[in-house]
Amino acid sequence: MRMRPFGRLISLDQAVAQLVRAARPVRATEEVLLEDAVGRVPVRTVRARTPVPPFPRATWDGYAFRSRSTRGARPDRPRNLRIVGEVFAERAFPRALGPDEAVAIATGGAIPRGADTVQIFEEAAVGKGWITIRAYVPPGERLARIGEDYRRGTPLAEAGRPLGPAAIGALASTGIRRVRVYRKPRVAMIPNGNELVVPGGKLGPHQIFESNNLVLGALVRALGGVPILVPPVVDDPRKIESAIRRQLPRADLVLLTGGSSVGERDYLPQILPRVGKLLFHGIAVRPGKPTLAAVRGGRLVIGMPGHPTSCLANGFWMLLPVLRRLGHLPGPGTIPLEVRFAAAYPIAPGALATVVPVRLAEGWAHPTFHGSHAITSLTDANAYLIVRPGEGSIRRGDRRRVELLPEPIGPAPLPK
Amino acid sequence: MRMRPFGRLISLDQAVAQLVRAARPVRATEEVLLEDAVGRVPVRTVRARTPVPPFPRATWDGYAFRSRSTRGARPDRPRNLRIVGEVFAERAFPRALGPDEAVAIATGGAIPRGADTVQIFEEAAVGKGWITIRAYVPPGERLARIGEDYRRGTPLAEAGRPLGPAAIGALASTGIRRVRVYRKPRVAMIPNGNELVVPGGKLGPHQIFESNNLVLGALVRALGGVPILVPPVVDDPRKIESAIRRQLPRADLVLLTGGSSVGERDYLPQILPRVGKLLFHGIAVRPGKPTLAAVRGGRLVIGMPGHPTSCLANGFWMLLPVLRRLGHLPGPGTIPLEVRFAAAYPIAPGALATVVPVRLAEGWAHPTFHGSHAITSLTDANAYLIVRPGEGSIRRGDRRRVELLPEPIGPAPLPK
Repeated sequence: MRMRPFGRLISLDQAVAQLVRAARPVRATEEVLLEDAVGRVPVRTVRARTPVPPFPRATWDGYAFRSRSTRGARPDRPRNLRIVGEVFAERAFPRALGPDEAVAIATGGAIPRGADTVQIFEEAAVGKGWITIRAYVPPGERLARIGEDYRRGTPLAEAGRPLGPAAIGALASTGIRRVRVYRKPRVAMIPNGNELVVPGGKLGPHQIFESNNLVLGALVRALGGVPILVPPVVDDPRKIESAIRRQLPRADLVLLTGGSSVGERDYLPQILPRVGKLLFHGIAVRPGKPTLAAVRGGRLVIGMPGHPTSCLANGFWMLLPVLRRLGHLPGPGTIPLEVRFAAAYPIAPGALATVVPVRLAEGWAHPTFHGSHAITSLTDANAYLIVRPGEGSIRRGDRRRVELLPEPIGPAPLPK
Repeated sequence: MRMRPFGRLISLDQAVAQLVRAARPVRATEEVLLEDAVGRVPVRTVRARTPVPPFPRATWDGYAFRSRSTRGARPDRPRNLRIVGEVFAERAFPRALGPDEAVAIATGGAIPRGADTVQIFEEAAVGKGWITIRAYVPPGERLARIGEDYRRGTPLAEAGRPLGPAAIGALASTGIRRVRVYRKPRVAMIPNGNELVVPGGKLGPHQIFESNNLVLGALVRALGGVPILVPPVVDDPRKIESAIRRQLPRADLVLLTGGSSVGERDYLPQILPRVGKLLFHGIAVRPGKPTLAAVRGGRLVIGMPGHPTSCLANGFWMLLPVLRRLGHLPGPGTIPLEVRFAAAYPIAPGALATVVPVRLAEGWAHPTFHGSHAITSLTDANAYLIVRPGEGSIRRGDRRRVELLPEPIGPAPLPK
């Protein structure tokens, strides 16, 4: 059995920086209906087509009149205004209001010409055909002026910022029905190994079920991408290379799992320099050290360890920023939180950073890791901590900054 | 214009408690492929069908042998073991290993009968057909025993806990391909008002575009539900009632917007007691006070103000827990964070709680609210704070616990 040892390992921070720099954000765009747009990223800043409100509107149920008609009103010197009609939301009052006239108006109703303020029902004494006002009502009360929410041309959704419910509402309120967004990133996943059987099939002796595709596919889905699940490829360098070449034209990112280390059958270190420019082989991190990456025409090809936990740990700290970059999503995608450790966690000394998956529950971090071959090391994790070389072991009660993984990547934390 | 004033307002906390208690979680189930299962909630706890690993496997590249063969090995008294073969992942060694024999083994390879430990390549001196061991290697090194990750029957995905990538991987690793999950909650949304035009259409005089459906639909989508967007219904109590009755059999929740207050054309307070048992009318909160709810056979009908911001603020503190309950999602769905306020925010005194939407950026909370009629009050918000009656105004620099809204409900916060 031959070995091709790692060269110089690069640090975890360098690996992320290189990958994020090399990943080319998706350029293709598509138009989607607003009802399908939540979480999607607009290509251009979208501006208001109309002012909102498009006409002056009452923001409460009440009476609209001229402010000037109430000038000098006092409890002992009230003003009476004659009720000359009523305004519901969709129909306007047909003429301009004169002095000492008022109309009953419902929330959302158009303020009549001549009126410039609204008094709410509860504060007006109502007689037969009259209201009595006992204090001056300044102009502009309980109404929204034309364009008070936003004017024509106001940016309502910014390029490169994912659409949430409020932004979708803002676009709808100016009459927009469709929005141009970036296509979802497509990520091809190729598992590599003779022993792998697709779940649902039957295991022969010494075979195991392939799970990395579904793990990474779920991560890609959770981040708004489209996974392309390629069936396992046997340990044959020509077959692996041709699988990569087949996926490169259709995928924004190609992920390989297994065959990334230094053993005789670990073919990726020979193949990747042939399909693109090798960025690195070996990251100073555990789990996840046997990771390598190449880039070809702005498309990344990343080879990761077949150990499910190494693979998913890589997913958290390395793929998440790369996938966000491909999909034009801003920020790291995790939420930093200062928490105390509920248990000690020993860190082996040396030059490797350590990824420590934890479960946050009731304000404490509980380490969940028990071996990189064990997928159950991560089923409970909803956050992780990176311990950099030299930072030492974690003691019970230590406060550390962990990165919370949003649902559904991590299960929701239990409340404090 | 007639008025039917509110009765006793219930508190925000009572409103949420009543709604969550009355909401019946979806009972229907469906089977989905694992590749479509991220974020879905399993109906039953799913247990391992097989032990993993199903046979003892090497967890590193190295040599497998009997630990006993190295007993007493020291740098000055090394033991030589004869290399009798090699084991790759999918193929087993054909016979039991004898004393002083070793096989080269790749990560994932089956440990031969007779062998009980693995030494990594780097720590074994290799001769022609021999390896030299200079220290005792205890049993169980660098290998995973049968069932070491999990045994047959181990729970891999819990009932009622949404599936993340790791749980999906665990299910895949035991050969499972499909999982039974709860159907997604269906939420019918009925906007109410003569002045409303669906976005994409053309505004007449004094009309406005309907946006609440799309806002609430985006919220429902973001929480894994299925929105049913009903076109606006005019202010006619019979039409509104029949729209509700049409949706009740197909929806797990019916949301109405507009027509929920105390004005003459606010028909929901008359209609809701006819279609179900009225839970409340009027919540002691601003924005959002004109909110009412009824329940019929475990199905909630909720009427909310038509003001886009009141509607979405309700969405944050009230609908989010209700939608999570319908969809069997645990916890509140927001992330509590202690932050400082970057600006003062005045709170009017009185008996109403106040919902304060904020934008978290670089560790500070910036209030974004500028009127409940203004949808732009919320387009920047990614968190909110509830100020309860009597808690007083917020001063610049105050530390408060805010509820972070996960992406894409709130835009991702800028890092500290």
